Amino acid sequence: MNMGVVIGRVTATRKDDNLVGFKLLITQPIDVKEETTGEPIVAVDMAGAGVGEKVIYVTGSMASRATQNKDAPVDAAIVGIIDTFEVEKEYGGKS
Amino acid sequence: MNMGVVIGRVTATRKDDNLVGFKLLITQPIDVKEETTGEPIVAVDMAGAGVGEKVIYVTGSMASRATQNKDAPVDAAIVGIIDTFEVEKEYGGKS
Amino acid sequence: MNMGVVIGRVTATRKDDNLVGFKLLITQPIDVKEETTGEPIVAVDMAGAGVGEKVIYVTGSMASRATQNKDAPVDAAIVGIIDTFEVEKEYGGKS
Amino acid sequence: MNMGVVIGRVTATRKDDNLVGFKLLITQPIDVKEETTGEPIVAVDMAGAGVGEKVIYVTGSMASRATQNKDAPVDAAIVGIIDTFEVEKEYGGKS
Amino acid sequence: MNMGVVIGRVTATRKDDNLVGFKLLITQPIDVKEETTGEPIVAVDMAGAGVGEKVIYVTGSMASRATQNKDAPVDAAIVGIIDTFEVEKEYGGKS
Repeated sequence: MNMGVVIGRVTATRKDDNLVGFKLLITQPIDVKEETTGEPIVAVDMAGAGVGEKVIYVTGSMASRATQNKDAPVDAAIVGIIDTFEVEKEYGGKS
Repeated sequence: MNMGVVIGRVTATRKDDNLVGFKLLITQPIDVKEETTGEPIVAVDMAGAGVGEKVIYVTGSMASRATQNKDAPVDAAIVGIIDTFEVEKEYGGKS
Repeated sequence: MNMGVVIGRVTATRKDDNLVGFKLLITQPIDVKEETTGEPIVAVDMAGAGVGEKVIYVTGSMASRATQNKDAPVDAAIVGIIDTFEVEKEYGGKS
Repeated sequence: MNMGVVIGRVTATRKDDNLVGFKLLITQPIDVKEETTGEPIVAVDMAGAGVGEKVIYVTGSMASRATQNKDAPVDAAIVGIIDTFEVEKEYGGKS
Repeated sequence: MNMGVVIGRVTATRKDDNLVGFKLLITQPIDVKEETTGEPIVAVDMAGAGVGEKVIYVTGSMASRATQNKDAPVDAAIVGIIDTFEVEKEYGGKS
């Protein structure tokens, strides 16, 4: 899974029937320094996330599993809201 | 899922039987600034998309699910036409 | 799916039983300008492709679906021969 | 699979029911020189890993298989603790 | 599939039960010039490969299929030993 922050949403009236009812959130991947990393993706919200919240999202076929609709063509889903995360020891290479 | 814009199409007479009847659209990935990002892909159209339209597409095994043909060897499918999208708050890093 | 051009083949006598009989073609990904993009891959030929032909190939678990052998450990397959493709309108960004 | 080192953990109270009870570890990918390579990911711990330990992790749909819960939306899982690894012969190109 | 060369192995005593008995080989991806390309991965050996041998490996969920254990959390597997490969005609762009 990856960490991201929700930055917006997409509206699409004409879409696959199995996507009806899902909230499509634009999610910016972030790293452990909370800096952006890579391009935003569009993820289905399965955790009640709002703009500005830090989230955990899943990609690939497991994302559709979160939707509990085996016919939903979904490859990215928000599955948790991050309370906190901690990097206890940054890795400094071979010791 | 990702956002893209349809820029063309591919014609292939000799192909897998389970691809017959599908429209194969060349789709350019775009970011939230509507700039191109990365290389175009070939996606099966499941949303009635036309050249110039902004779309949502799915990749990987979930794309085949959109085709409702479990034998279709498809790894990218257009599943929605974007009406609008909004970035409510651009992410500016840790606050 | 992606576009590529077949540039060679691989011979492997010792291999998974479920790969026996498949032609393993070295396929160079190309973009819409027909320039090379990224590294060549090894794809199972399911479309009767020959060296020099432009093809459509599928990657990931859907590639194995093209082989019609559910036990074949295949993650890339050629599923069509490109007759033509056209980029009707190159995307020039937000208008 | 890939090699990584566990550097921290994520806490998420609001999350998919099928993620409840899993330890979510921030894992930094490393290469054969034990240097960092690419961005950290969030992996479900299925091997009793602790911070600072070198691990093997799996990504994609196979990660969920490690959890033995077919409804868990998981795309990365730690499946082993590395005792040692050895690069017997570094590859120096065509000979 | 991709081409690689086996450069070492990983030992992990504590691991997923479904990984017990598999040989975990460090495999360096190579291109058609037999130069290294990208970072080594850890692949399950299903072809009797040894250090220094050139191999074909599969990634993603299809890799687990090669192990013939549907519960094995495996995302990379060596499925063939390369005898030879030939690039008959290097692609020089649009003609």
